[in-house]
Amino acid sequence: MTKPDSKRSSVALVTGKPANAAEEQVNNGSSDPSVSGSPHHALTPATPTKHKSAKQVSRDNLSRRNTESEVFDDGTNTFFWRAHTVTVLFILTCVLVYVTLLEETPQDTTYNTKRGIVASILVFLCFGVTQAKDGPFTRPHPAYWRFWLCVSVVYELFLIFVLFQTVRDGRQFMKYIDPKLGVALPERDYGGNCLIYDPGNTTDPWHNIWDKMDGFVPAHFLGWYIKTLVIRDWWMCMIISVMFEFLEYSLEHQLPNFSECWWDHWIMDVLVCNGLGIYAGMKTLGWLSMKPYQWQGLWNIPTYKGKIKRMAFQFTPYSWVKFEWKPASNLRRWLAVLGIIFMFLLAELNTFYLKFVLWMPPEHYLVLLRLVFFVNVGGVAMREIYDFMDDPKFYRKLGQQAWLVAAITVTEFLIVVKYDPRTIMLPIPFFVTQCWFLGIVLILSWTLWLPFWNIWKAMTNYSAFGKCSDSFFHNLLRLQPYSKIDKRENPHQFTHNGP
Amino acid sequence: MTKPDSKRSSVALVTGKPANAAEEQVNNGSSDPSVSGSPHHALTPATPTKHKSAKQVSRDNLSRRNTESEVFDDGTNTFFWRAHTVTVLFILTCVLVYVTLLEETPQDTTYNTKRGIVASILVFLCFGVTQAKDGPFTRPHPAYWRFWLCVSVVYELFLIFVLFQTVRDGRQFMKYIDPKLGVALPERDYGGNCLIYDPGNTTDPWHNIWDKMDGFVPAHFLGWYIKTLVIRDWWMCMIISVMFEFLEYSLEHQLPNFSECWWDHWIMDVLVCNGLGIYAGMKTLGWLSMKPYQWQGLWNIPTYKGKIKRMAFQFTPYSWVKFEWKPASNLRRWLAVLGIIFMFLLAELNTFYLKFVLWMPPEHYLVLLRLVFFVNVGGVAMREIYDFMDDPKFYRKLGQQAWLVAAITVTEFLIVVKYDPRTIMLPIPFFVTQCWFLGIVLILSWTLWLPFWNIWKAMTNYSAFGKCSDSFFHNLLRLQPYSKIDKRENPHQFTHNGP
Repeated sequence: MTKPDSKRSSVALVTGKPANAAEEQVNNGSSDPSVSGSPHHALTPATPTKHKSAKQVSRDNLSRRNTESEVFDDGTNTFFWRAHTVTVLFILTCVLVYVTLLEETPQDTTYNTKRGIVASILVFLCFGVTQAKDGPFTRPHPAYWRFWLCVSVVYELFLIFVLFQTVRDGRQFMKYIDPKLGVALPERDYGGNCLIYDPGNTTDPWHNIWDKMDGFVPAHFLGWYIKTLVIRDWWMCMIISVMFEFLEYSLEHQLPNFSECWWDHWIMDVLVCNGLGIYAGMKTLGWLSMKPYQWQGLWNIPTYKGKIKRMAFQFTPYSWVKFEWKPASNLRRWLAVLGIIFMFLLAELNTFYLKFVLWMPPEHYLVLLRLVFFVNVGGVAMREIYDFMDDPKFYRKLGQQAWLVAAITVTEFLIVVKYDPRTIMLPIPFFVTQCWFLGIVLILSWTLWLPFWNIWKAMTNYSAFGKCSDSFFHNLLRLQPYSKIDKRENPHQFTHNGP
Repeated sequence: MTKPDSKRSSVALVTGKPANAAEEQVNNGSSDPSVSGSPHHALTPATPTKHKSAKQVSRDNLSRRNTESEVFDDGTNTFFWRAHTVTVLFILTCVLVYVTLLEETPQDTTYNTKRGIVASILVFLCFGVTQAKDGPFTRPHPAYWRFWLCVSVVYELFLIFVLFQTVRDGRQFMKYIDPKLGVALPERDYGGNCLIYDPGNTTDPWHNIWDKMDGFVPAHFLGWYIKTLVIRDWWMCMIISVMFEFLEYSLEHQLPNFSECWWDHWIMDVLVCNGLGIYAGMKTLGWLSMKPYQWQGLWNIPTYKGKIKRMAFQFTPYSWVKFEWKPASNLRRWLAVLGIIFMFLLAELNTFYLKFVLWMPPEHYLVLLRLVFFVNVGGVAMREIYDFMDDPKFYRKLGQQAWLVAAITVTEFLIVVKYDPRTIMLPIPFFVTQCWFLGIVLILSWTLWLPFWNIWKAMTNYSAFGKCSDSFFHNLLRLQPYSKIDKRENPHQFTHNGP
């Protein structure tokens, strides 16, 4: 396949003399400011060592020129990247000929049905990995992300099928995947004794803490590390992390394994596991937004050390976009961020509720596979949502992976509602209802207040009275991001400015 | 969704002063040669009546500048074209909520399984029509072609599933689609009395001819009309048409409904039905390659007549590429054309053999649906194959629809082989074997002779001895099309020449 980013990189290579060079370029600690400030570096990709410390911001997408890293790419298109459509088709044909004509077909109808479905899925993956539309990510290989896209499709169709079965049939259907499934789960309770120091236990008064130190501690840490890389924003991560603990409090009357000790909620989860994960994630984000993005073909690198480094860097992103969600900048972004947080929390809750209604033991490999799946598709989806929000053109498409992740989250939730409406409808304690009511009122009033706040901000910015009335209407129904103002200019002005 | 061709059209609009204007522009009968020759017309798309008779060849793809029509597009992007990804997702969610939560789920497992599969397919189509990769065609709407792409995927997966069943199960599986299927077919024979004038029948001596005048006559005509539009080449159409009659002769010992009278083969089929269909198709091709491609937004057209015309033209292609297969120009193209003819004939044979092995009555609606399907995907696939062949870059992808059509044809054939190896292996009559042997030897010797013929052609073209040795090696292993020679120049030279 061809490299989807090659166009962008070539634009970056011919771009010289940026209009606002000082504003667009960020010196990431180079001792010689003239190195990172020189526009000629973009024209000399053959000498990467000279501008290794220079981070420039891509100029082909003006609406986010401050958030996207600059990329140098020598455009090497090796066998690794080249099209294999015909090769894959040929191999597929050979495999089909061997399996269906040369092997004896078993006479077992059930087995053949299963085999036929698995074969259909494999052929679909074969087609999709070779031919599906590329997403925003290209490292380590676009085919990797196409694979996960196709897995999303298969998973969504599986969920749809399960959704259309009766509760009994759906649970028993899981037996086709693993004969051990389809059995009701024993009830478990994570609460109980909440004393940090338990004087009643003479052998080890701290035993309650050690009890909680199970495999979920590193899992939580790793989970939040990845979530931070996906969301790329400290505030949003913290809000989701805290919100989820509130949700656990609110829903512990429905799912007993949400009931934890207060210190398990706030100290172990929010502070230690999630907090450290978010901290490590933010550090990695900082590195990713600072590191130089220089892609040379392996054969163009002279030293062995350089070659090995290049191979390792294949597993880092091709370029980097800093997410600036700016929820307060206008109503559209505010609603979008609310929606993202809502969907994120819903997906998190689905993890627990889906296990519960489909009778999946928490340690089952399918539960883990679902998490691995979400780690892989979540990053793509979030990037696509950011692109969708950030694009000033309102008729842009929502990315395919984001579309699918939204559909999957909704379908999972529908399965939960359909399979166990009783649990979902258990009456919420009065105190919890009050808290949520208060929260919703606060969010709603902020939402209503936001346009006026933006007007006030704009009015204090524009001191000239003439501009004020103009900006008033602009801000009142401001559904476009601020960056749209830049967009009125010729978007190609920088690319045409080159020497 | 956005219009995939907008980039190309904008290039066409800014293109002025083409380097070889005389060579590139074709005057299609305008009385004023200066109208079609003036390069300024490309810059005045707002006055379409002035250059209605001017046909210019697109210059953004140099490798086929003589075969692709010039397009003028004012770039109107109405609601009709705009993204509906979020809308579709919302509607899908609402439908799922209604069907699965508000409707009572039936207790019938078989019915639910069927319903679940149908729902999965519908959700897949929903996703695909909204999000799949666009193909080369955009009229009447890209979503139309995305729909057929997704149908191809579903059909291919269905075929794979059938391929993995035992013969008995596979035939009975058809009962799930239509309970009337899965029943052995009665044998039929199209041959019999071959007298054109039958003196034995006193009431109507011509009854044999009237007997053949069934619904298949217009079907053959229409079929070959469409095939001509798909293949876009008189010679290839004629070869495939004649070859298929030879195949019918050769295989009538396997499928009795291939046995026809000699005049049914050559006069009714090749001359009358196919010949007229190809003739009508070639006339349409001529019109399509001459007609102006001017796309204005509906609201930009002043007159009602113009608006209605514009609406009708929505169902004609966005632009037109004349196919120049040039099988003799080099070995790669020769082998490609051979491959295309082979796959085309295989797909035609599959129509008959698949009916035979899966016990489908010829008048069943599934048979017709399969033909409608092939009509829709065949055009896209052929265009993608042409693009793949014509592209000088060897690492270009084979188009997704072409990939799928190839996979479908192969899978159908594998089903035929697996389900009825006995019929396929019936010994071929000695006379038929001899004919085929002769044909294969002729094709093989031409294949071996082709590189030398190309060398000879090149040597007679280059009279200067110095160039001769250069072209010798060039032609000996010439795997690239001739057009590659043009490609060495800067491909953007025309687009940068604009005033």
